[in-house]
Amino acid sequence: MSVIKPSIPKGTRDFSPSVMANRNFIFETIKTVFKKFGYQEIQTPAMENLSTLTGKYGDEGDKLIFKVLNSGDYLAKANLDNLTNRNSSAISPEISEKALRYDLTVPFARYVVMHQNEITFPFKRFQIQNVWRADKPQKGRYREFYQCDADVVGSDSLLNEADFILIYDEALSKLGLKDFNIKINNRKILSGIAEIIGKPELIVDLTIAIDKIDKIGLLGVCDELLTRGFSDIDIEILKPLILLGGTNNEKIETLKIVLSSSVTGLKGIFEIETIFKYLDSFEMINGKLELDITLARGLNYYTGAIFEVKTNEAAMGSIGGGGRYDDLTGMFGLKNLSGVGISFGADRIYDVLEELNLFPETKNQLTQILITNSDIDSERYALPLLQKLRNEGVAVEIYHQSAKLKKQLKYADDKNIKYVAIIGTEEIESNQITLKNMHSGEQQRFLIQDLINKFKALKP
Amino acid sequence: MSVIKPSIPKGTRDFSPSVMANRNFIFETIKTVFKKFGYQEIQTPAMENLSTLTGKYGDEGDKLIFKVLNSGDYLAKANLDNLTNRNSSAISPEISEKALRYDLTVPFARYVVMHQNEITFPFKRFQIQNVWRADKPQKGRYREFYQCDADVVGSDSLLNEADFILIYDEALSKLGLKDFNIKINNRKILSGIAEIIGKPELIVDLTIAIDKIDKIGLLGVCDELLTRGFSDIDIEILKPLILLGGTNNEKIETLKIVLSSSVTGLKGIFEIETIFKYLDSFEMINGKLELDITLARGLNYYTGAIFEVKTNEAAMGSIGGGGRYDDLTGMFGLKNLSGVGISFGADRIYDVLEELNLFPETKNQLTQILITNSDIDSERYALPLLQKLRNEGVAVEIYHQSAKLKKQLKYADDKNIKYVAIIGTEEIESNQITLKNMHSGEQQRFLIQDLINKFKALKP
Repeated sequence: MSVIKPSIPKGTRDFSPSVMANRNFIFETIKTVFKKFGYQEIQTPAMENLSTLTGKYGDEGDKLIFKVLNSGDYLAKANLDNLTNRNSSAISPEISEKALRYDLTVPFARYVVMHQNEITFPFKRFQIQNVWRADKPQKGRYREFYQCDADVVGSDSLLNEADFILIYDEALSKLGLKDFNIKINNRKILSGIAEIIGKPELIVDLTIAIDKIDKIGLLGVCDELLTRGFSDIDIEILKPLILLGGTNNEKIETLKIVLSSSVTGLKGIFEIETIFKYLDSFEMINGKLELDITLARGLNYYTGAIFEVKTNEAAMGSIGGGGRYDDLTGMFGLKNLSGVGISFGADRIYDVLEELNLFPETKNQLTQILITNSDIDSERYALPLLQKLRNEGVAVEIYHQSAKLKKQLKYADDKNIKYVAIIGTEEIESNQITLKNMHSGEQQRFLIQDLINKFKALKP
Repeated sequence: MSVIKPSIPKGTRDFSPSVMANRNFIFETIKTVFKKFGYQEIQTPAMENLSTLTGKYGDEGDKLIFKVLNSGDYLAKANLDNLTNRNSSAISPEISEKALRYDLTVPFARYVVMHQNEITFPFKRFQIQNVWRADKPQKGRYREFYQCDADVVGSDSLLNEADFILIYDEALSKLGLKDFNIKINNRKILSGIAEIIGKPELIVDLTIAIDKIDKIGLLGVCDELLTRGFSDIDIEILKPLILLGGTNNEKIETLKIVLSSSVTGLKGIFEIETIFKYLDSFEMINGKLELDITLARGLNYYTGAIFEVKTNEAAMGSIGGGGRYDDLTGMFGLKNLSGVGISFGADRIYDVLEELNLFPETKNQLTQILITNSDIDSERYALPLLQKLRNEGVAVEIYHQSAKLKKQLKYADDKNIKYVAIIGTEEIESNQITLKNMHSGEQQRFLIQDLINKFKALKP
């Protein structure tokens, strides 16, 4: 076997213990909130049939799906013309029938259709798994990354939208974020706007232009709208929307006037109002709810509410988003199941928590005590103590072999172990132990039983 | 988009909420024990470079590695002769440079070598991730499954072996198993036996034959040994080993006599004795430690201790195994790092716990209370209660829309929700709630605040 210099595929990552501890903190926190709101976990296989994924993400998306080569003599039945012409795209479906999942949404839709007879609707599920995309790797963009989704299907009740806003608020607050906006819009409001000016194809241009109001002012936005294909008359109609401001209620009142002639637009406003009314019964923790009509993410996809979360404590794009889609499972033949869902951007949240120094330090302190090992006597003295501490649920290690104290202290330091239990001749003779606090440097002698009691009392 | 009947690749599985809850119970229990013993979690990417994996699992293993097709125009540079000849095996490395991990051991070795400068040795890591093998799917054998491994590298101390036995004992006992054997052998004992009869190539035949003693008796074993290439003289020498019985200490004494002329064999016995001596300082919970010289798993691989765990409560093969390997990272150029590790067979453990009915029922009870929804008034009445209960950490849902009580009770029943909080006109007028226990059928009225206090007190 020749020796190869090890590396990993570009765009993928190893997660070392301290990073894992931080990532687990994020996922566990979010999971706990999902569960509290009645969401149940599922997992789907990493590989889906290629036919399940193809055609769901647009042509560009299809190119980014990682395909898995068939096993065995996979070329045996491949078309010879396609092979000799090196026609990669024609050969792909002949030599690959499986692919790595590209997101969690399509596998979830597939899951719901396959398991529809055993599911109680509305089905509230969450799913935290990795996905793979053959994107060009760059800072913050990976070829393997985790998605963290919650969705409910089989209910068009707007209570679900209210719950998702509360989930965002509670989860992000529990992660330590103090100042973030939970933005909400409604696809029907955007459709209503398109309707009143008669230019549905320009709706994204409109939201992009309006979004710049703070930077380039009313005149700037009007100029941009003109270059993007809107007329002076359009702009006159749109002006109240460009200048839309004030409280959420004030925005709603303005929208009602501007969209008074659009049945769809008014429906969208009614939905937003209903969600706000539900939320009046709840106190938000740190999140601020903001109606933002420039929010247009997933426009091809969402049919009702659109969500996006932004932190105000760090320069970072959206850290979460979602919305309502009316026909998720239609692609697999199960019609008329409305769904709504949200997603947490785990990698971005990680970067924000790191920048704000919000990861709890204790998360990295796996082992609480290291017992030193200086010779066979100290080892023999240590083992029963090891057992007694572990019986109390204390995470404790003995140094694996006799070694210089300095080396053992370094090991404790590197592993971020707070306490070192030092055993020397004196300690053995007096049935004691010297406990060194690696943070303060303080040392103190304990009788064995007192030490056990001390850590028993510390137990969480 | 045409409608396709959804399916998943053969040998893969969806995990529904109740199964996920059970699986999480297994993984969380094992994780907690790993951590208590000072093991830290890492994760590695699902895709490794093909060159990292190839040649590590033998020719048969290599065929079972799932290869990932290169992105883009992957045939552009493929050898035309190989294409026209449909030479699948020659084309593979030209069109695929990545593959799905086949186990956690090789990626771990790769990780240690790549991160050697940031690792404090001995490095104690655990890893719970899925692996993929293009095996023929059959009952209990999947193409995607989880491995659950703990290893330590950079230490040849036998304290590690003792710790692993304690980890098995504690984790399996915490999972509810009452009667299981933790078998231990040592590669050096097997080498010693091969040495004294001068037939190292027959060592596996020997262990297979001896293993049948309980079924076919001494004469049967002797016959089998003769057909497997052993001589009458060999059998005379081997007889004490074929009949090896009694306590672990008795077995050790016999081995010392039989292997007295083999330095390697005696070294193996010494290692086993040392581990047993360490374990004298500990009380095992439910596991029984058993020296078993027929244990030969991973013979090409292990150099010292060999472990295997078998439950006596269900007909099931090994539910865990492991051993010491002297040169794990050598394949990636880092020499002289001894390692020892164990693995839990999660899928088999799942089946055992299910058969023995050991999954805690509460694990499936995600939502504690469902609040009913009969009309807009009950909804309005319910929302503040929802918030108050959630503030106390209670997992609570409101039914998503007004509906017949029967339908709502069915929803609670299907989701295994224990309590339903019923709100009718009387309840609203008296600031009360009727709490129905879905298990006992019992109903009781509470003042809102009393209900909150009740669940506050129940909090774990």
